[in-house]
Amino acid sequence: MPSISKKGQLMPQSPIRKLAPFAEQAAKEGKTIYYLNIGQPDIKTPQVALDAVKIHSLEILAYTRSEGSEDYRRKIADYYLKNDIKVNHDDIIVTTGGSEALLFAFGSVMDVDDEIIIPEPFYANYNGFSTASGVKVVPVISKIEDNFALPPIEEFEKLITPKTKAILICNPGNPTGYLYSKEEIKKLAAIVKKHDLFLIADEVYREFVYDGDTHYSVMQELGLEDHAIMIDSVSKRYSMCGARIGCLVSKNKSVIQTALKFAQARLSPPTLAQIASEAALATPQRYFDNVIKEYVDRRNTLITELQKIDGVKVAKPKGAFYCIAELPVKNSDDFAQWLLEHFDVDGETIMVAPAGGFYSTPGVGLNQVRIAYVLKKESLIKAVNILKEALKVYKD
Amino acid sequence: MPSISKKGQLMPQSPIRKLAPFAEQAAKEGKTIYYLNIGQPDIKTPQVALDAVKIHSLEILAYTRSEGSEDYRRKIADYYLKNDIKVNHDDIIVTTGGSEALLFAFGSVMDVDDEIIIPEPFYANYNGFSTASGVKVVPVISKIEDNFALPPIEEFEKLITPKTKAILICNPGNPTGYLYSKEEIKKLAAIVKKHDLFLIADEVYREFVYDGDTHYSVMQELGLEDHAIMIDSVSKRYSMCGARIGCLVSKNKSVIQTALKFAQARLSPPTLAQIASEAALATPQRYFDNVIKEYVDRRNTLITELQKIDGVKVAKPKGAFYCIAELPVKNSDDFAQWLLEHFDVDGETIMVAPAGGFYSTPGVGLNQVRIAYVLKKESLIKAVNILKEALKVYKD
Ligand SMILES: Cc1ncc(COP(=O)(O)O)c(C=O)c1O
Ligand SMILES: Cc1ncc(COP(=O)(O)O)c(C=O)c1O
Repeated sequence: MPSISKKGQLMPQSPIRKLAPFAEQAAKEGKTIYYLNIGQPDIKTPQVALDAVKIHSLEILAYTRSEGSEDYRRKIADYYLKNDIKVNHDDIIVTTGGSEALLFAFGSVMDVDDEIIIPEPFYANYNGFSTASGVKVVPVISKIEDNFALPPIEEFEKLITPKTKAILICNPGNPTGYLYSKEEIKKLAAIVKKHDLFLIADEVYREFVYDGDTHYSVMQELGLEDHAIMIDSVSKRYSMCGARIGCLVSKNKSVIQTALKFAQARLSPPTLAQIASEAALATPQRYFDNVIKEYVDRRNTLITELQKIDGVKVAKPKGAFYCIAELPVKNSDDFAQWLLEHFDVDGETIMVAPAGGFYSTPGVGLNQVRIAYVLKKESLIKAVNILKEALKVYKD
Repeated sequence: MPSISKKGQLMPQSPIRKLAPFAEQAAKEGKTIYYLNIGQPDIKTPQVALDAVKIHSLEILAYTRSEGSEDYRRKIADYYLKNDIKVNHDDIIVTTGGSEALLFAFGSVMDVDDEIIIPEPFYANYNGFSTASGVKVVPVISKIEDNFALPPIEEFEKLITPKTKAILICNPGNPTGYLYSKEEIKKLAAIVKKHDLFLIADEVYREFVYDGDTHYSVMQELGLEDHAIMIDSVSKRYSMCGARIGCLVSKNKSVIQTALKFAQARLSPPTLAQIASEAALATPQRYFDNVIKEYVDRRNTLITELQKIDGVKVAKPKGAFYCIAELPVKNSDDFAQWLLEHFDVDGETIMVAPAGGFYSTPGVGLNQVRIAYVLKKESLIKAVNILKEALKVYKD
């Protein structure tokens, strides 16, 4: 039998996927599960986006341009302008989700054995894209004690080698919920300029910023034009994860021209989803106001409830809709599985994402879990109560 | 300024793309252009597919499973069964177009510096996917004189090295229109079994087979289960290229498990397009009967008209909707550009795809073009007449 590739063998499994069979079994046994493990919001997609695909009058569902339709890119540029990000439509390549934008960015700036520095914990699929591209992730640890703030600049500089090509940040962060300050972005800008690196910023959670804070994009930093690559997506912004539309944005023409070649090879981003995403840009502000209010409320509830549990440490998220909680357990993989297999409160249990998968340093984060607040407040309260009761009886 | 990757520099431009600015300019000057260069059919998408996205009642456009929704995969398996291809829903991973299925197949079976043997001329983007994966394409030449039949087995065996991991065929072929016979597939099966290779078959044009011939899939060949990987797509079958739905099919469990990890990293194929593609499976047979009749008619017209031109040689396509024509010119790149820049018949000209981009052996195919018969018969007649007149006056 012919053998599969080494990189295929190395590709990581999604940290949640391993638990899926246990969740399925628990559901089969009639348990109710509160899914705190997923990045799929329960928020409704703006009606204007859903309507757009209902009223289209296409007779042929044709390819669009590989970089996305020009109309749509012009409207995206307008959207950025409203967010104080000055880019042109030809600085933008529309992609099949932020995921593909990450893949194009990796492919455009890194070869096999090159290195990318990423503050950890980080979005688990950065590991997958790195493995697929043969790129080595060099983690720099951000700590729950510091609320996952940017690690000191010296920590980055220690890690830079001739193979380092880029620093990747997620702002606001999944799984940390951390929002980088303008000062932190400026510090990163200084390092990448000094060492001639790219700064790739995954800003798919841009809108999800709380407590009156404002988001500072790498695209707003003057002088960073040649270095900055922004990754974006409609998935979370409009709760339309299934559209599969995102984009790669850069003022660096070589990056855009190179990413475009990757885009051409796969022909076109999805057409129906571009129609929906273009329409979504007209979503009224009150939609976002309501969504943000809802998330703040959920976050506050979640954090307050978690803090009431003995031995649980939690970093207060300033953005996105995740938080990392440290639990009084040895191994959160085992604990998460046990919750599904062996525990319930009146037939109800919870599914959490073990945080090990969000770190690339082995052994770090093993007592942490990621909790997504993509459920209604009442459900969150019940879910945290289940966690509390579980920790009382769990033995590892 | 930080530099882009070597592989990004090596990524090929689409052979058509280079001509695009000249086509734009010609159109601006008021010339009518017959686009013979594209793979975007002018056939209408089945109404049942377009309607499905109009009547959906989704409130949240959510991710589907990474491997595609189970319902859809079960229906795809049924469709294959009707085509005498016995596969299960869990042998299938739904992808973002056949393009992504190719990328997953390459990633699952090959590492950097591995080799893949492909009969040339071949679909130009195989070069792009190979470059993106760091894989070396080893071409084996099929000749216009032989109507692009499978090259002799000895030619394949000569090229096999310890780095060879797979043979890739396109059946029926883009750009050749060649349909492999059952005997040819059996010969390929024997080689890949003997040398323990994968046989990747791009069968996205399966339905487009003419003259009463039948398509023989690699998935129908007994004993090839561990070796065969089929690439498929709804793009051409239902004229819904913009959906971006395809699939990777294999009976080899390691291949499916590995491809699934690549699929998980990018989360989900597009949801709306899966709804449309699932509905498209109910397209009535008379739709295909009409489409095939139309293409046969177009092909016959195109070939007959081309054969009337002095010095033009053309291989008669048995499937798909392309043909390769050899022209009495030295360099079809220059000729194609000249047609757009300097030639017209009553204000009308044509755009053809220079065939150089479909070969990876340098210097081969330079006097050939690919002509797609994605235009109505009357337009094809006019277009070939323009070619005839152009060849009378063109000097290279
Ligand atoms: C930080 C981050 N980046 C990128 C993505 C990719 O999302 P998509 O491909 O749906 O745009 C996600 C999805 O969860 C994410 O959390
Ligand atoms: C031979 C072949 N394979 C694969 C594809 C990819 O098509 P898609 O990604 O639209 O399924 C094409 C498109 O033209 C093709 O001609």
